[in-house]
Formats: sequence, C-alpha cells, structure tokens
Amino acid sequence: MNLILLFAEDFVDAHRVVIEGRRFAHITTIHRAVVGDQLIVGLAEGQIGSGTVTRIDRQSLEMQTELVFDPPAPLPITLLLALPRPKVLSRVIETITAMGVKELFLINTARVEKSFWQSDRLDDDVVNAHLILGLEQGKDTRLPRVQMRKKLRPFLEDELPGIAVGTSSLVAHPGASQECPYKLETAVTLAIGPEGGFIDKEISMFEEAGFTPVNLGSRILRVESAIPALLGRLF
Amino acid sequence: MNLILLFAEDFVDAHRVVIEGRRFAHITTIHRAVVGDQLIVGLAEGQIGSGTVTRIDRQSLEMQTELVFDPPAPLPITLLLALPRPKVLSRVIETITAMGVKELFLINTARVEKSFWQSDRLDDDVVNAHLILGLEQGKDTRLPRVQMRKKLRPFLEDELPGIAVGTSSLVAHPGASQECPYKLETAVTLAIGPEGGFIDKEISMFEEAGFTPVNLGSRILRVESAIPALLGRLF
Repeated sequence: MNLILLFAEDFVDAHRVVIEGRRFAHITTIHRAVVGDQLIVGLAEGQIGSGTVTRIDRQSLEMQTELVFDPPAPLPITLLLALPRPKVLSRVIETITAMGVKELFLINTARVEKSFWQSDRLDDDVVNAHLILGLEQGKDTRLPRVQMRKKLRPFLEDELPGIAVGTSSLVAHPGASQECPYKLETAVTLAIGPEGGFIDKEISMFEEAGFTPVNLGSRILRVESAIPALLGRLF
Repeated sequence: MNLILLFAEDFVDAHRVVIEGRRFAHITTIHRAVVGDQLIVGLAEGQIGSGTVTRIDRQSLEMQTELVFDPPAPLPITLLLALPRPKVLSRVIETITAMGVKELFLINTARVEKSFWQSDRLDDDVVNAHLILGLEQGKDTRLPRVQMRKKLRPFLEDELPGIAVGTSSLVAHPGASQECPYKLETAVTLAIGPEGGFIDKEISMFEEAGFTPVNLGSRILRVESAIPALLGRLF
C-alpha cells in the first residue's frame, strides 16, 4: 500500500479516522507504524495527504489526517477488454486502476470462454476489493467504473459510437499493419482482445465503428503485459 | 504456447521431431491438435516455421518441421532489475522474455529482502523453464541470458561501464524530474528498482555511472506492470 485509502465512514470527526481490519493489519505489520508515524492517505473520491498515527491498540488505530493534494489526473482512456480468465481478471483490474484508467468495459468476444462470465471474480464486492488495491498501489483515490457487456454487437452498434466519439479509437491486434502510436495527446478508446485474439469478423466490426487496428510488434503478449505496454506507450 | 519451442534433441532426423511430456500434453489438450494439423514451431536459438503433426499416440507425437523464418529481432536493451520477490520473479522472467529482452541482470539493492536470494526460483532449471515459457508466449527462439549480481557497488563500478557504454542509460525512479522518453532509436541500459524503490544513495551511484533517473508519472506501479510499461514506451 503506497497510500491508505480512507472512506467517509472511517472518520470519527473532520480530521480523525479509526482504522480496523485489513488496513490496520497492513499498517501495523507491513509498514510497522508506531505512534507518531506519518503515512500517505487519501479519501476515496477525494484528496490525498498525510495521516499521523495517534493511537494503536490491538485491533484498531487512529490517525489525524490532513488532506491537501488532488489525486493524479485520470488517464484519458476508455478501455474495452475482452473478459480475461478469472484469476487474470483480478490482477488486471488492479493494474489498470494503478495506472489511472477510470472507464473499463469488460466485453464478450468469440474467444472468451463462456464459463468466465460465471466467475465470482465478477461479483461487485470482489471487483471493488481489487479496485481499492489498485488505488492503494497507484496512490490514487478515484475509483474506476467497471461495466460488463455480454453482447458485443449491440454494444458496438448502439453504445460504442457515443463512447468513442472524438477519441483516437484503437484496437490492439497482433496482425495489424500499423504500429501502435506513441504519446497521444488526445483521448483514446482502446480495445484489447482475449487470449488468441479477436477473430477477423470482430476486427472488421471495430473497423466499421471507426477503430484502427494497431500492433505492438510480432510478439504475442499476455494481457497482463499488453495492457501496461499499451498504456505506457500511448500516454 | 503461441510457438512450440524445439530443441536439438527432439529431432529424430533433419525435419522430424518427437515430442513428449509438457509440450505433448499442451499440444494435445490445449491446441487439441490432430494428425495433419500445422503448428507454429521454432528451434531454440534457431529459426521459426511450421510443424505438421504426422503421428499422435498416448505419450508422444511426431511432427514434420519446416523452419524458414528468423526469430524476431531482440530488443536492444540490457535490463538491470532489483531481485523481485520469488513468485513475482518467475512471472517477470516470462514477461521480459516474451517482450524480447535478451540480457537481464538481477541485482541486489538496499530494499531487496535478503531471503529472496535463497529462493529456489533462482535455480538454473527453474529460471530456464520460465525463459522457455516466455519464448513460447512471445514466439521467439533466442534464450535471454540471466545473470545475478549480489554486490551492487562492484557491479556498478567495475562491470556496468562496459555494459552501458554507447547506450541510453536510464534508471526508473518515481521521484525523478524527467519523464521516461518514448521510442528511443538507441540501445538502452535500464535499471528498475525493488518494491519501495531505490534508495537515494543508489540513485546517486547510478547517476555517477552516467544514468538518468526517469519517471512514469506520479503513480507507483508494481514491477510486473512497470516493466512492460517502460518497454512499451521505449521501443
């Protein structure tokens, strides 16, 4: 945890929080904080600053907080991601959150295994737990919005035009003739396929929606690597 | 496996291989290959092409091979990586291999936990297994060289000048004032710190060795994300 994420319900008065459970355990065993130590804290959807530990007992600790900085600017991107296998999904949610993505659509494609949609990793509370881990990693406070779209065609035809309008619209595709661009100054809508990639028909559907297929070279990367490689290059 | 990596000992004659064990299981259960199917294969340190399945029995299969393409060009980088925690190390080895890194030094720094150096994940055969998984992922045949340097100062003073000469020498450091550059056309030597980062003294030592500290923004990324983000941006 590079930042301890605080929630409104942690506050016992305007500048004082009481922390229990997972965060308490982390602060006392990993940070090994003692009374007087200052930690980086941030209020969910709010500002970032310092928390000075004023009391530690066996199950909780208290901090005096001073929140003074705005969180880092979001990446100007909407990510459309073919639903990855469940154990990868949780890691990917942490990664994109840590990197500053705020809009994620998990989409269905021909090569997404149907069983993935049954995973309890898609439950709101599990997704939320990994979003929080991502914010704590990336020192951010604004929770991304994660939406699921199990029907690709209606999503592409009805919803995507409104999302992609005015953005650079890219679909990552190892077979693409064009290289993924560097350091775009525009907002981006980026689609990333499943293991095995998008099928040709899906690429055509994205092209019809105004997307440009782009490659990251001839090597095929796992989604866990492809996402940071693309984000690191685009922004 | 996007490519089945073959070794000299698999060949029963110039264009025929017999495959058993892990690769046999993968080809029959994941690819669900049948006689007549063509798979992408590559000879370790050699060329890439196709393997046509000519026989499958219960424990082995035979392929007729035709190796015609050179493997993709290596990334022109030497990576100096503070030894990550063991379970992360194996994933990172796969990632950097899949992305085309050919020279990796695992280095010791102040914030590397001493116990990490005792891990059996550093054993040659374990490292090698993950290098192979990385090549199979990235469709490459050239094995990276992985070296370990447990003493930082002698490495930086005696060995690094010879490695870094003529390259863009960068040390990834979240506190750096300079942004990591995009699309370098030169060879690169890149140092990446441990969880918690390099300490100030280490950054000074790298600066004395001619390295420029560079950041990827204010967010702190896990090494599994930082590496692809840096490589995706630099090349």
